[in-house]
Amino acid sequence: MAKPFSEPSTESAAKPLATKPLAAKPLALTLGEPAGIGPDITIAAWLRRGELNLPAFYLLGDEALIARRAKALGADIRIAAVSPSEAGSAFTDALPVVATGERATAEPGRPDSSSAPAALASIRQAVLDVRAGRAGAVVTNPIAKSVLYRAGFRHPGHTEFLAELAAENGRVPQPVMMLWSPQLAVVPVTIHVSLRDALGELTTELIVSTVRIVAAELKSRFGIARPRIAVSGLNPHAGEDGSLGHEEQTVIVPALKALRNDGIEVRGPLPADTMFHEAARRTYDCAVCMYHDQALIPIKTVAFDDAVNVTLGLPFIRTSPDHGTAFDIAGTGKANPASLIAALKLASRMAASQS
Amino acid sequence: MAKPFSEPSTESAAKPLATKPLAAKPLALTLGEPAGIGPDITIAAWLRRGELNLPAFYLLGDEALIARRAKALGADIRIAAVSPSEAGSAFTDALPVVATGERATAEPGRPDSSSAPAALASIRQAVLDVRAGRAGAVVTNPIAKSVLYRAGFRHPGHTEFLAELAAENGRVPQPVMMLWSPQLAVVPVTIHVSLRDALGELTTELIVSTVRIVAAELKSRFGIARPRIAVSGLNPHAGEDGSLGHEEQTVIVPALKALRNDGIEVRGPLPADTMFHEAARRTYDCAVCMYHDQALIPIKTVAFDDAVNVTLGLPFIRTSPDHGTAFDIAGTGKANPASLIAALKLASRMAASQS
Repeated sequence: MAKPFSEPSTESAAKPLATKPLAAKPLALTLGEPAGIGPDITIAAWLRRGELNLPAFYLLGDEALIARRAKALGADIRIAAVSPSEAGSAFTDALPVVATGERATAEPGRPDSSSAPAALASIRQAVLDVRAGRAGAVVTNPIAKSVLYRAGFRHPGHTEFLAELAAENGRVPQPVMMLWSPQLAVVPVTIHVSLRDALGELTTELIVSTVRIVAAELKSRFGIARPRIAVSGLNPHAGEDGSLGHEEQTVIVPALKALRNDGIEVRGPLPADTMFHEAARRTYDCAVCMYHDQALIPIKTVAFDDAVNVTLGLPFIRTSPDHGTAFDIAGTGKANPASLIAALKLASRMAASQS
Repeated sequence: MAKPFSEPSTESAAKPLATKPLAAKPLALTLGEPAGIGPDITIAAWLRRGELNLPAFYLLGDEALIARRAKALGADIRIAAVSPSEAGSAFTDALPVVATGERATAEPGRPDSSSAPAALASIRQAVLDVRAGRAGAVVTNPIAKSVLYRAGFRHPGHTEFLAELAAENGRVPQPVMMLWSPQLAVVPVTIHVSLRDALGELTTELIVSTVRIVAAELKSRFGIARPRIAVSGLNPHAGEDGSLGHEEQTVIVPALKALRNDGIEVRGPLPADTMFHEAARRTYDCAVCMYHDQALIPIKTVAFDDAVNVTLGLPFIRTSPDHGTAFDIAGTGKANPASLIAALKLASRMAASQS
């Protein structure tokens, strides 16, 4: 049996962070879509703060919305209207809410005209807070792009909006999406485009710039001195020496050469189907994949509930739960806070480990 | 690692087969590439026949090759030169070998001119045996296509050759590749082509003909009265209502409609990344996917060692270990027989359950 990864090795990117302390500064948690499950999972996470030793966070939102949602959920909570500097001490006894000035009046599951300004103000303020040092990291609740588009939002998505907010001297950084779990970390090089368009977008330059960011942040924010990066092929069996496609030879191998010249430890192009079993996962810190499903199938197969979306490439730490607004269960108490909880913990450990 | 059939399963196509008896007729096991690990794993599987309660099988090959390989491996075994009808009773005390008349003199790891005739004769004779009722099923050891091509072999692969051998009145059946494990069964609609070519090959007709075969054989050979089939989308998020690709609407949805008109229980197109976690797997018997890695990433992630390759669509049962010839470890004793063992057990249970 072909087993490219039979040698015993250390743990993946999870290990260095698993033993890190939590950050001292509170996390800035955005409201997300007010009519979605963001308020639900925020309340649910705060209720488990003691049991799970969660890092302190504050919600950038509307105190009245949270009070209404808590009531709908039957959650008996205290809410503290605070400034970011007060959030850390308030967190033990109350859910800290920092006002954005935008009221959000939408009912659960029914986004309305209040959703867009409230959601966007929360994101903008979180970025200001983290850049000013008032927060250790930004954790974002899910937004509904279609709702924002109707209100004139013109960015391709949440992450690109954050990159715009992070621009310096007109230069917008390249955001890189990582999905992280204790078992596996993955980065898709092309992301939210059709598979056909992904084939067109995949270039040597894009692979190189993506892996450089991954390698740099595994060092600077995950505490991995010498990151090991596994790079997948695009085609079945990584093209089988060109008989099942040529992109490995024409696009990926040149990228790996350039990266090795940078001193980055990359292996590939590896057949994607044999990269993700348990023994294989132990041989690298992050798998860089060529398209969305190649990266997301394995991580959602092994870590469905608690995978975390991490945006690399920004001048601040940003994590996010790896799910959507789930309008159908907003306000019902059915929303699972596991991914938000994992996002909060990871953000705090990254902030503490940041070099 | 889950052990096939060793515990009651609540999952997928495994369930009905888990309680089936083994078949009465012996299995015809092909030699595969003589210089590869086929002889090694055949010997290793036979040695564990009692411990694992393996079904009786006979190898279609060359007694002298097996004797040499056993010696190289330090395996003290008896070999019985038999006819297929004698294999069942011989199996307990000796590894039954049915001669094909082709000597295989290649050394481990070094295929030579003896490889192709010996490998091909074994496959041909296995098909004759199963079609004449002398064997319950065909289990094939891995071949090396490149070696066969040098000897004039003109079929795209092992499976297509079997389909040719199964032709009746000039009509070659459509073979369908299933990867089966106790945790998950998957079928890729397009298989060993580049990702770019897969996009071109994917048609409504191909999806319909593939799923019809899957549904029919889950009934006839896996004992599932009403098979539940999950069909993936092609694009991220199954195209997200057309914003990430149109093939879901233009190609897949029409196929699902046609299949429902046939009375087949299909769901889809489903986002591929959320189809394969443990809870999702329990909701269907087989996942039909649009391309190779979409199907093989999840099964090799959750069942790397003991996934079995099953060819549906043929007039006989054929299973195969899900790995290659592994020339680098042939004759060393390092080859893992787990997938061959799983293939033998599955073939026997399918033969016993065949309606």
